[in-house]
Amino acid sequence: MNKQDLTLLTDLYELTMMQGYYKKGQHETVVFDVFYRHNPCGNGYSVCAGLDQVIDYIKNLNFTYEDVDYLRSLHIFDDDFLQYLSGFHFTGDIYAIPEGSVVFPKEPLLKVIAPIMEAQLVETTILNLINHQSLIATKTSRVVYAADGDGIMEFGLRRAQGPDAGLYGARAAIIGGCVGTSNVLAGQLFDVPVMGTHAHSWIMTFPDEYTAFKYYAELYPDNCTLLVDTYDTLKSGVPNAIRVFQEFKDAGKPLKKYGIRLDSGDLAYLSKKARKMLDEAGFPDASICASNDLDEYLLHDLKAQGAAINSWGVGTHLITSKDCPSFGGVYKLSAIKNENGEFIPKIKISENTEKITNPGNKTIYRIYEKETGKIKADLICFADETFDESQDLLLFDPLETWKKTKLAGGTYTMREMLVPIFKNGECIYTSPSVTEIAEYCKQEKDSLWDETKRLFYPHRVYVDLSQRLYDVKKALLDQAHKPE
Amino acid sequence: MNKQDLTLLTDLYELTMMQGYYKKGQHETVVFDVFYRHNPCGNGYSVCAGLDQVIDYIKNLNFTYEDVDYLRSLHIFDDDFLQYLSGFHFTGDIYAIPEGSVVFPKEPLLKVIAPIMEAQLVETTILNLINHQSLIATKTSRVVYAADGDGIMEFGLRRAQGPDAGLYGARAAIIGGCVGTSNVLAGQLFDVPVMGTHAHSWIMTFPDEYTAFKYYAELYPDNCTLLVDTYDTLKSGVPNAIRVFQEFKDAGKPLKKYGIRLDSGDLAYLSKKARKMLDEAGFPDASICASNDLDEYLLHDLKAQGAAINSWGVGTHLITSKDCPSFGGVYKLSAIKNENGEFIPKIKISENTEKITNPGNKTIYRIYEKETGKIKADLICFADETFDESQDLLLFDPLETWKKTKLAGGTYTMREMLVPIFKNGECIYTSPSVTEIAEYCKQEKDSLWDETKRLFYPHRVYVDLSQRLYDVKKALLDQAHKPE
Repeated sequence: MNKQDLTLLTDLYELTMMQGYYKKGQHETVVFDVFYRHNPCGNGYSVCAGLDQVIDYIKNLNFTYEDVDYLRSLHIFDDDFLQYLSGFHFTGDIYAIPEGSVVFPKEPLLKVIAPIMEAQLVETTILNLINHQSLIATKTSRVVYAADGDGIMEFGLRRAQGPDAGLYGARAAIIGGCVGTSNVLAGQLFDVPVMGTHAHSWIMTFPDEYTAFKYYAELYPDNCTLLVDTYDTLKSGVPNAIRVFQEFKDAGKPLKKYGIRLDSGDLAYLSKKARKMLDEAGFPDASICASNDLDEYLLHDLKAQGAAINSWGVGTHLITSKDCPSFGGVYKLSAIKNENGEFIPKIKISENTEKITNPGNKTIYRIYEKETGKIKADLICFADETFDESQDLLLFDPLETWKKTKLAGGTYTMREMLVPIFKNGECIYTSPSVTEIAEYCKQEKDSLWDETKRLFYPHRVYVDLSQRLYDVKKALLDQAHKPE
Repeated sequence: MNKQDLTLLTDLYELTMMQGYYKKGQHETVVFDVFYRHNPCGNGYSVCAGLDQVIDYIKNLNFTYEDVDYLRSLHIFDDDFLQYLSGFHFTGDIYAIPEGSVVFPKEPLLKVIAPIMEAQLVETTILNLINHQSLIATKTSRVVYAADGDGIMEFGLRRAQGPDAGLYGARAAIIGGCVGTSNVLAGQLFDVPVMGTHAHSWIMTFPDEYTAFKYYAELYPDNCTLLVDTYDTLKSGVPNAIRVFQEFKDAGKPLKKYGIRLDSGDLAYLSKKARKMLDEAGFPDASICASNDLDEYLLHDLKAQGAAINSWGVGTHLITSKDCPSFGGVYKLSAIKNENGEFIPKIKISENTEKITNPGNKTIYRIYEKETGKIKADLICFADETFDESQDLLLFDPLETWKKTKLAGGTYTMREMLVPIFKNGECIYTSPSVTEIAEYCKQEKDSLWDETKRLFYPHRVYVDLSQRLYDVKKALLDQAHKPE
């Protein structure tokens, strides 16, 4: 995108509502929560990402002359409101769960506390950024889990949904556990490893495959992965690769990191055959990389069948999260500050129980089992609630309230997940580097039980409500559903 | 994205291959084709889009000092090659099918004729731009077809895969037939209609629904769509909306364009009930708009059940093309120019017949039935072939060659689909406005038979090869598959 700021990257209704609040003189401070209802792809958790771009967005929020002129041309905004917009900047507070954290449905990933006009405006872009990157970081986590320690390379730029989807998708993929990306711009902007070798077209511009391989190896002796499926993988590609590896060895200048890439055919069959050929030729350290429409399911199955593959290039399925290409984050009003400075909880009712929101100005505590460091549950409560880890803690399921667990004092630890990002419009948070976020994300996944990381039908992590929050929610629901 | 140019938005291997060609002194002019193999979502055709962004990309291609410094830091590029990059600009030719055209599998949507290093570099970004926008324009066409004349509004920004996916997705949605978008930045940059009213949060900040409606109607009497499902659609929302409509009528200032929006519950049931209530209250001209996770299938079914809905807001499913979130465009070498200036056809062999490419420097003629103006077939041929519409034309299926059709001279017309965009690095094409492209796209769809527009199992449009192209392809295949 050719714009430095994304101020107008918003739904029109945010602006029509803003004008409504403006005209009505409504300046209350409100609380909006970003949360989601289901983990994508049936996963047991999600990885949140995109906060650093949200910070950039908020910092750069401003309506230029051109923006205001454009809005005036729509003939729905009055001059006094446009005047207000031209001086607009964000003055509120934002709290968020740090990028790379594992998160669960219903809990606020990000919380905006701001005058209503400001809080309303930022809805669409915040959702766009968080939804996209959390989706790709979560999908990547699944692929990385299936690879069971093998390196996953992000190769999807050409199939991403536009330039940003490629760029920020690569960022999210690194956060989710990819060892590198083919995307050079992502490498430049986020200081992450870039990877890749050559395409079929390279081979096709040479008189024959052997010559193409040989030339490539001369150019890149330190890191030489040869694509072996242009003509015939086992009859031509692998033998030609071995011939080149051998020639370099014989010449006393063996290749440093080297191997082959398979990009078509049955990867289990071909990789095992190729492994055998490479081993028998005396190249047991030649790596085998595979690509070609891979996802976590195929990867899982190929590994189960003993595919002799060390590293995987994953494209379309990862960069679009193909089987589930949206992360359903929503942005819901949860409280309005009254003239006494108290947050009055607000609830959105729905016939659909799971769509009922959690009211109030809230925070989240993550509860870890002291002995293992694993996550016991998350607890959503009001922001001003305090807990004492030395005391017993009673957790109960907010829907099936008879499901209760008592944690004995001293056996658990608590960590507040929402951290302050903006205070009175001022950014007070410094984002870690993408590499640091990826490292943190790895630790985060270590805090999950294996049962939650499983690809299929994982165990659910409980997200409970504090007794006080539960009581307030119940009272609001009862009040809304008074018998007629 | 905060960068003016997308030069580094490319796969690393494009650059490692470029360096290889550079070192080898390989400067031949080559031909690369962009084509795809399957229409997304089982559609009978696709709509190509994204060319205007490709033009911007090519025009702005250049390696800045920072870019070159970054590449140097990777320690895989030599100084002489980096020197070459710092003076790089595109000097080749590009041909493309105009945006908004209906297109079919296997035919080149875009053709690059350039020195090999230049042609190789631009692969990834061209594919990214064309794949994304063609996907969304095609998906939109399906949704618009299902709506059978009702207006479709693009409402997906918050679920799009990043800012660009929202912005250019909105552009592609307008090309594909949406009447407007909620995306204000898309409105500003592409001069297309922006639409939207208010969210649940608007209602929730007022003491009651009636007051919220009333205030909104006062603000926007010319275009007032009230969201009626915050509390209870039929018991509260619709009656309150009617009360407000009535009050404005009674006060002698009836609302101009007005209606309600349904965003949850069963849209067939609720819309019919709401229609009845509105009609009985004397508001037959109140429109009913629906949103909530719509796609072409649900829309088709809702219309079949007589849902009383006039306009539809479509979000996630359209902006991500949820059931098929990638358009499989590929970029394949098809010819190399020899020292005599002749294009030597190149073919990529594959065990998978459908992955075998069409060799040579080609163009496409679209063949229309003169009487109806409908598409008979597309014909791929060499760029230098000529045809005479007064002569009989024999078409045959390139796989099932016994399937033949003879068109009598004078009963058909031919139109060359690829038009010149860049000549010697100079852009010689002026893109129409997005509105003009959308208008053209509508005409394009009129040239399809109804059988091809059907949502389910549409009739295939034939894409045939000229006799000369067929003969050359067959000879290349025979040559590659000589018995041993």
